[in-house]
Amino acid sequence: MTWIPDPAFAKDLPFGPQTLPYGVVDTGDAQGPRVAVRVGDHALPLAPFGDELGDLVDLVSGSSLDPLLAASRVEWSALRARLMDVVNGSGKPPGASLLPLTDVRTPLPFTVGDYVDFYSSRYHAENVGRIMRPDSEPLLPNWTHLPVGYHGRAGTVVVSGTDVVRPHGQRRGSPLPQFGPSGRLDVEAEVGFVCGGPVARRVPTSNAPEHIFGVVLVNDWSARDIQGWEYQPLGPFLGKSFATSVSAWVTPLEALTVARTPVPDPGHPRVDYLVEDSPWGLDLRLAVEWNGTVVSRPNFADMSYSCAQQLAHMTVNGATVRPGDLFASGTVSGPSVEHRGCFLELSWGGREKIKLSDGSTRTFLEDGDTVVITATAPGEDGSVVGIAEVTGTVLPADFADVGG
Amino acid sequence: MTWIPDPAFAKDLPFGPQTLPYGVVDTGDAQGPRVAVRVGDHALPLAPFGDELGDLVDLVSGSSLDPLLAASRVEWSALRARLMDVVNGSGKPPGASLLPLTDVRTPLPFTVGDYVDFYSSRYHAENVGRIMRPDSEPLLPNWTHLPVGYHGRAGTVVVSGTDVVRPHGQRRGSPLPQFGPSGRLDVEAEVGFVCGGPVARRVPTSNAPEHIFGVVLVNDWSARDIQGWEYQPLGPFLGKSFATSVSAWVTPLEALTVARTPVPDPGHPRVDYLVEDSPWGLDLRLAVEWNGTVVSRPNFADMSYSCAQQLAHMTVNGATVRPGDLFASGTVSGPSVEHRGCFLELSWGGREKIKLSDGSTRTFLEDGDTVVITATAPGEDGSVVGIAEVTGTVLPADFADVGG
Repeated sequence: MTWIPDPAFAKDLPFGPQTLPYGVVDTGDAQGPRVAVRVGDHALPLAPFGDELGDLVDLVSGSSLDPLLAASRVEWSALRARLMDVVNGSGKPPGASLLPLTDVRTPLPFTVGDYVDFYSSRYHAENVGRIMRPDSEPLLPNWTHLPVGYHGRAGTVVVSGTDVVRPHGQRRGSPLPQFGPSGRLDVEAEVGFVCGGPVARRVPTSNAPEHIFGVVLVNDWSARDIQGWEYQPLGPFLGKSFATSVSAWVTPLEALTVARTPVPDPGHPRVDYLVEDSPWGLDLRLAVEWNGTVVSRPNFADMSYSCAQQLAHMTVNGATVRPGDLFASGTVSGPSVEHRGCFLELSWGGREKIKLSDGSTRTFLEDGDTVVITATAPGEDGSVVGIAEVTGTVLPADFADVGG
Repeated sequence: MTWIPDPAFAKDLPFGPQTLPYGVVDTGDAQGPRVAVRVGDHALPLAPFGDELGDLVDLVSGSSLDPLLAASRVEWSALRARLMDVVNGSGKPPGASLLPLTDVRTPLPFTVGDYVDFYSSRYHAENVGRIMRPDSEPLLPNWTHLPVGYHGRAGTVVVSGTDVVRPHGQRRGSPLPQFGPSGRLDVEAEVGFVCGGPVARRVPTSNAPEHIFGVVLVNDWSARDIQGWEYQPLGPFLGKSFATSVSAWVTPLEALTVARTPVPDPGHPRVDYLVEDSPWGLDLRLAVEWNGTVVSRPNFADMSYSCAQQLAHMTVNGATVRPGDLFASGTVSGPSVEHRGCFLELSWGGREKIKLSDGSTRTFLEDGDTVVITATAPGEDGSVVGIAEVTGTVLPADFADVGG
């Protein structure tokens, strides 16, 4: 019995009242950017709504989610409960306005602290190993014992919808390396976790909900030729750092309680700090669309390490986690071809062409291509919970100014 | 003819009027943290000084260097010129006060954006290659063509003087990995570059002074056993992310004009964007003290890539650089044993003992050990320019709470 007249605001659709993801909207008016929740195909900017939100409104009265992230699980839960009352009420509360998503800009909703990217799909790691190092074991010995990861560039995390300029860089050549626009531009479909709560050292798996505010989709754009030349021995750098796209809306972790699944058994004992006290995998069903053709449907439930294990690992050495830190799962891939979460895997290193519905074929991204990643999860009472889409279009390389 | 009655404020000493590094001081009083310059063994908090600083005082009136970093080279130069007039005047200007460094706390003076660590000493890279991969070529093929680097953890960059807790982590073991406090805790003596100016994509080597505000020393603490187990294929992660220490004072790049030296010739052509139009190496003479014994004296002039090349490389793919971004050179090592900038090299992988002046010996760090890194450079008219020291003491591991 909601007062919100949007047919997309329904419990069997991703952005019904069961989801209520947080973001920031900007209509270009004098009010500037404001915190909002997404209700169907509309944004509901947050306001006192009479006194429905009480003091909690202070957490969402600024121009970003930063104060909300710096709050605590208790406050996150309380705010979510009150917002559910607001959207499920039969009358429009005072101060409420609905903005069609087509009429608003949605900037990056929070300040990214550190950005960490993991590598937690066994299927992805094995496929990449087979493609890149065909003569060795596909998985290195450490992989089954810890969630391998690295730090990425926080300053080039961009919001969904931002165009991505094809990067330049060095790649293998003989006798000298070549330099120019990447010829092997790829995506990686990932799930990202937005951290919040007090600054903490060593977060046990059981404490993950105190420090993970919510979930976004991540497209970890990757220039495979640049990466292949540069990555030994210190890991990916310029092949990844030009852009990483994230959803404009953050789905609260609390909306994903029903979606929890056990993490696949590694087949050997885990070091204590990685042992989980409850299922921390998530049944998130992703879809990767390339110019409108769904080319892959990976499931996050196939990941070998959970977000709770990743956070425990990231902080077990005493490193702190701060509100605004973002960590991503690594490419989500599964056991079959149709579950492969990047084009390197889908084209098997560029050797197999991928067919799009317009009749064209691809191996890696061409200028003008658009990639959209979406995801849904099971919610309470048969509802569907959405993780907001992450989209991006490739623009041609632009390097005239440096004479490279 | 300065009014500053501090014998350490002399042109033949590191923190005389030729240096004037910026930092933040906090005396614990109601004023809170304030921007200051270091004059000898004192801090001079910045104030209008009558009207000596004009509008530029706005850049240094807050509690951090962030507004100053966000300004521009023109403003940095103008402010430095006016501060030189202030400290070189014969009378104490209105509002000036000198605080002994022993009486102030010096917090981290700026908000670290992204932290990147390079690997630009050929001597260090070759030594590490020989120690870690004795059966292969010590340098990988990419090393001589690009400055290899990776992103580190910005949230655990700490100011000089901060204690460093020995990190826990996984290390190699059979059949299962071991877990516990690192047994091979090391330092890396590095030079760090603090970025400023407008947000920029692709910074040519000739534009480096517009985007590098100044220089600090960096101790990139490293747990070699954790690093050795985790680092393939995505690079160092928990072996480094527990702490990275930086100087409390940032020496302006402009103070190092006389210290410029050519970068060693690589012996083959460079890709265009790495070609420098002027010498960008720096004659910085480092000293590494272990519990008071100088164990190494590396010279930054031996580095194979300059800060201008590193910045050009870091942004050549279209990645932006922001005020507050920090990049470090990688361990500074030279051709002889006495130039090795980390204990892994000095002890040759733990096989050779290092003697300290108290008669004890070391391979890696023991609890309670203190490491101090200092550096000086030649300045104008025979003066000496200092880069402020970076110090840290190792505290024992503290893990009881997680039952690891």
